[in-house]
Amino acid sequence: MTQEDLQSDRKRLVHLAMDLIERRGAEVGKTTLASEAQMSRSRIDAVFPEESDLFDAILEDWYAPDIAIMEEVVESDLPIERKFYEFFARRFARERERFREDPALFALYVELGTARMEQVRGYIDLADHYMSILVAEAQAEGFFANLKIDKAMSLINQMVICYTSPQVMMMLDERLTEEKLGAIIDTLFAGLSGKESSARGVAGLKLA
Amino acid sequence: MTQEDLQSDRKRLVHLAMDLIERRGAEVGKTTLASEAQMSRSRIDAVFPEESDLFDAILEDWYAPDIAIMEEVVESDLPIERKFYEFFARRFARERERFREDPALFALYVELGTARMEQVRGYIDLADHYMSILVAEAQAEGFFANLKIDKAMSLINQMVICYTSPQVMMMLDERLTEEKLGAIIDTLFAGLSGKESSARGVAGLKLA
Repeated sequence: MTQEDLQSDRKRLVHLAMDLIERRGAEVGKTTLASEAQMSRSRIDAVFPEESDLFDAILEDWYAPDIAIMEEVVESDLPIERKFYEFFARRFARERERFREDPALFALYVELGTARMEQVRGYIDLADHYMSILVAEAQAEGFFANLKIDKAMSLINQMVICYTSPQVMMMLDERLTEEKLGAIIDTLFAGLSGKESSARGVAGLKLA
Repeated sequence: MTQEDLQSDRKRLVHLAMDLIERRGAEVGKTTLASEAQMSRSRIDAVFPEESDLFDAILEDWYAPDIAIMEEVVESDLPIERKFYEFFARRFARERERFREDPALFALYVELGTARMEQVRGYIDLADHYMSILVAEAQAEGFFANLKIDKAMSLINQMVICYTSPQVMMMLDERLTEEKLGAIIDTLFAGLSGKESSARGVAGLKLA
């Protein structure tokens, strides 16, 4: 088999596996895939040496559009506030579309991903990598002052989690809108900094 | 049976039901409760006429400390930023303690609550009621300018969801800290307003 044959088999098998997951409502392993594809097990093994390689290939397909979005936004010449908005809004819109198209299938993928968090982790880290570029750019323009980059990222990730977590999307759905996401990004740019907290204070809670 | 007997049975049965839920790892109904309490079914029915009355009583017990916290904070004479912080931080600390004490039992209660969302709804609405008092107070002091109260509440709820949602707590646990919650509240007070969004802009995404 040439490298090209392998790549074309891989693509075809990933799409077949995703069709099977949709039809069966459960994860699909290499044995099932070989039988449904009417391929020899050795051929399947050549494409996916380990069970985890099949799931990795599915993840790659699932996240490819997200990576394209992030690269496009990071490389664009938009104002930084707008980059932040597009960075989250475009991926949110895409996830919501997948969710609404088939909520049960979406929930199944979330379940599969949660069970294989070590394989998903790389994509979360990649999103954090792109976001760190945007945070550095914002800080160079004077936003998020006096915050270490990791701290700024952690706070931003927590404040926009409604628009990045598929679990939260399944809970809130219609209460999530691009307009609210925009207002949250605006709030971050207007208010996030490392200045001394007035909310936490130091004294104990006095009662009226 | 006097009203006092009823109340004392109710309390005792709720605690027994919660012990049973913990031991069995599953919801407990009136039939099981009657047998475990060695009480007649008619006595149980006098205390909990409907199946849902038992779960309501469990919810009441679960949320009583939260209601006490919210009342205490709303009535306190703390500065408004600090009230917001305490309003979320104290309930968060309490939930985290329950979660860490027994993560499996905590997850079971979350599952039971999710399955009976219509009964839980009243407590979420009550928390929103207390929060609306705090938002009105903040707006009277000039914060969250040019935002309708419902809009401000929706945005704030979304930005602090990491510290109010038990589902999110189960996912993030150690990444959640009172210090970060304080920074989020500070960001809200410094940045949340209804001014025209610069993040969303109007033009399409131009590429570099």
